Amino acid sequence: MKIIRASSAGFCFGVRRAFSLAFEAADRYSPVYSLGPLIHSPQVVKRLQERGVEVVEDVDGLSEGVVIVRSHGVTAEKMEEILASAMDVVDATCPFVKKAQEYAAMLRNEGYSVVLVGEKDHPEVQGIISYAENGNVYVVADFKEASSLPRKRKMGIVAQTTQSYENLRQIVDVCLEKSLELRVFNTICDATSIRQEEARSIARRSDMVLIVGGFNSANTTRLAQICREIQPHSQHVETADQIDPEWFEGVEVLGITAGASTPAWIIDEILEKVEKLKK
Amino acid sequence: MKIIRASSAGFCFGVRRAFSLAFEAADRYSPVYSLGPLIHSPQVVKRLQERGVEVVEDVDGLSEGVVIVRSHGVTAEKMEEILASAMDVVDATCPFVKKAQEYAAMLRNEGYSVVLVGEKDHPEVQGIISYAENGNVYVVADFKEASSLPRKRKMGIVAQTTQSYENLRQIVDVCLEKSLELRVFNTICDATSIRQEEARSIARRSDMVLIVGGFNSANTTRLAQICREIQPHSQHVETADQIDPEWFEGVEVLGITAGASTPAWIIDEILEKVEKLKK
Repeated sequence: MKIIRASSAGFCFGVRRAFSLAFEAADRYSPVYSLGPLIHSPQVVKRLQERGVEVVEDVDGLSEGVVIVRSHGVTAEKMEEILASAMDVVDATCPFVKKAQEYAAMLRNEGYSVVLVGEKDHPEVQGIISYAENGNVYVVADFKEASSLPRKRKMGIVAQTTQSYENLRQIVDVCLEKSLELRVFNTICDATSIRQEEARSIARRSDMVLIVGGFNSANTTRLAQICREIQPHSQHVETADQIDPEWFEGVEVLGITAGASTPAWIIDEILEKVEKLKK
Repeated sequence: MKIIRASSAGFCFGVRRAFSLAFEAADRYSPVYSLGPLIHSPQVVKRLQERGVEVVEDVDGLSEGVVIVRSHGVTAEKMEEILASAMDVVDATCPFVKKAQEYAAMLRNEGYSVVLVGEKDHPEVQGIISYAENGNVYVVADFKEASSLPRKRKMGIVAQTTQSYENLRQIVDVCLEKSLELRVFNTICDATSIRQEEARSIARRSDMVLIVGGFNSANTTRLAQICREIQPHSQHVETADQIDPEWFEGVEVLGITAGASTPAWIIDEILEKVEKLKK
């Protein structure tokens, strides 16, 4: 059985950074809290817990130690609350998300109606729009939603970092017609599209794909969906012990990819297990 | 013979304003010069000459009186030259063109690479880009030309006021991929597209269309072309005496439209002549 491992499998830049900051904080300080699970990987969250990092939903009632803001970022209000608390802060907000937050604030301050391309309920989106509060802010998922936006003299567009470029382009098209001035910050991080593209390419060259990552990770679930459209027998797993040897009967080429929140050690464990099965 | 007269025939806002300013200046001052022919209507230019407005190519050598800047506008350099001269200035630059000049200057000052959607050799375009000089300025006629633009962090787009919206949209699409920040000022004046749309609609409901305006007027020539595509017997005329009664044999419905630089009096003269032919 030949194995093709996606070079884009696993941590993106922002997750890698958050991961390092969290483990560093765990080594240096105590107590350390993470505001929500650091990333959508139960295995990583468990390791952090073993090093003393406790998941909390809020800083209320905490009186000392360090709190980690995860890579999605938080709302401006929440950030103020944290900074006003007695806690020290390790801000692991992805720098690309931070940029989107800054652009949203800047557009609001300069009098633009802010259009955010993204999913209304996603924590990253909630964070970004909070920086444009008290202004005109609209979250649109696609060009159909954008079509019902009111006309505005000045419109400013930012995007959730994981959006597809094509979706942004279609929304820009619609907003161009609705404004006299349109200002677009392309805040899309191409890690997502590169990973999806590679998954597609690998699925086409394999008999099945193993997609590794948290079952609660949206981007991993999406990768699994993409692979299954091409190779229906593809399997989404979180850990090596979930692997069923029967899956590989008749498989000559196996693809392996992983979501942005999947640590390398889990991918390695899975590869090891698969290698053993080959013998 | 039924006659349909386009409600959009004749002067646009900017030309009407330039026309009024020029005749006012002719009434009040002497000598008065026009920097280039005021508009592309030999009949209007002739009337202005009769009132004492002389066409000059430059202010060099002029020592007193008023100089009129026509609706296309002039380059920043030329404007400085005029202001530094002994002449008084009547600035008949179309306010929409002026806006485009101001946006170009502002984008340049704020560090954007300026992309102007338009025809390189048009005096309006020459005027607008001169306000972004000493910066990165590119004139692109269509999306194909835009495709060869270099990538830039900040791109700012303005359009020649007579461009089509669809062309601007296609160029925005291309530039969105080439920049991290894209700022678009939609400086298109819809007078042109409204007039063309109405000409199309009238051509479809007529047996032939009379298109009235200077043979040297680009927008009138374009109107004639549009009408002839639908009604091949359509005729482009400058004045009533060019009308040939034989054109109307068998014509049951006659359309009439006129370019942006065609004065109402010429359209009226033509209507009068046609009405007489009906009897």
